[in-house]
Amino acid sequence: MKIVFATGNKGKLKEAREIFKGHEVLSIKDFANDFNPEEKGDTFLQNAVIKAEAALIHTNEDAVLSDDSGLVVPVLNGDPGVYSSRYGGEDGNDALNRHKLLQEMKGIEDRAAYFQCTAVLLNKDGSAIVKTGKCYGTIGFEEKGTGGFGYDPIFIPDGLEKTMAELTPDEKNALSHRGVAFRKIMEKSQ
Amino acid sequence: MKIVFATGNKGKLKEAREIFKGHEVLSIKDFANDFNPEEKGDTFLQNAVIKAEAALIHTNEDAVLSDDSGLVVPVLNGDPGVYSSRYGGEDGNDALNRHKLLQEMKGIEDRAAYFQCTAVLLNKDGSAIVKTGKCYGTIGFEEKGTGGFGYDPIFIPDGLEKTMAELTPDEKNALSHRGVAFRKIMEKSQ
Repeated sequence: MKIVFATGNKGKLKEAREIFKGHEVLSIKDFANDFNPEEKGDTFLQNAVIKAEAALIHTNEDAVLSDDSGLVVPVLNGDPGVYSSRYGGEDGNDALNRHKLLQEMKGIEDRAAYFQCTAVLLNKDGSAIVKTGKCYGTIGFEEKGTGGFGYDPIFIPDGLEKTMAELTPDEKNALSHRGVAFRKIMEKSQ
Repeated sequence: MKIVFATGNKGKLKEAREIFKGHEVLSIKDFANDFNPEEKGDTFLQNAVIKAEAALIHTNEDAVLSDDSGLVVPVLNGDPGVYSSRYGGEDGNDALNRHKLLQEMKGIEDRAAYFQCTAVLLNKDGSAIVKTGKCYGTIGFEEKGTGGFGYDPIFIPDGLEKTMAELTPDEKNALSHRGVAFRKIMEKSQ
């Protein structure tokens, strides 16, 4: 089966291709250069659906894949959540996002958090499979490590004493919330 | 399995209970009297997801069911679509909606249309099954029949020479776009 992934992110594409073995995973950028739907949903699932439906409009293929991901901190009422990539401001970046989160967490003892990825495999006939992957951990007190991206330098996965940014790519992939969601979709779509 | 259906509509509940035999189908009204999430999505799927997620928040059950339905007229760029129930105005009703549609279709030869239902079975773990049912037909030139509701008196299902409102309840149920979507979900969730 051909699957069009509603992302231009090369890291995500690589991850999807490794998991959806036996299928041809294409990027939406091969179909629409200006693909950039407004992620106006209130939840990861709503945003993943918005991306999948937008991608379906641009392709003539049978199936599109999308995901929406972020970091959830329960003590902050779920923030940064769907705003993870713009938490430090609309024109923000990873460093500003992390800085804001460390500021918000100052003096807070309950540092539990998790990365969540909700993935959608949407078919032209209006059917879909939705799966969610989570990676549980805690928010550190300072940045550590230079690998990964986003909140990785301040996220310590449960059972480890290193941040996500201190792991090797293979170690990180084994924990990946996106990988968990993709593998669950792969199993269900057989 | 207990399934909470995100609707207070007794007709829909009855239909769901007949199809999801062997499961206990409850109404969200048993959990939250004021359940009325804002259906601000651009598509049936987006609205069905909004309703399912809102219902999940109000229950402690493992699974919720939701649907969003409407009449799609391709020659009108898909209208009334997600606005089917408020096509004649925010304070509109079935008669106003039908009146507006007949006005919009005046002089238009291509009268093809379909009812669509997109249904979502969402689980607490963030996984979901989505299925879509459609019932194809044409828009008549005047209202006929007194059964059914909504656009039934001006919708003639393909292969028939009567409007949906002239069918017996059993005849209508056999064609139901909602029934098709629910049966597909039932099969997939086994």
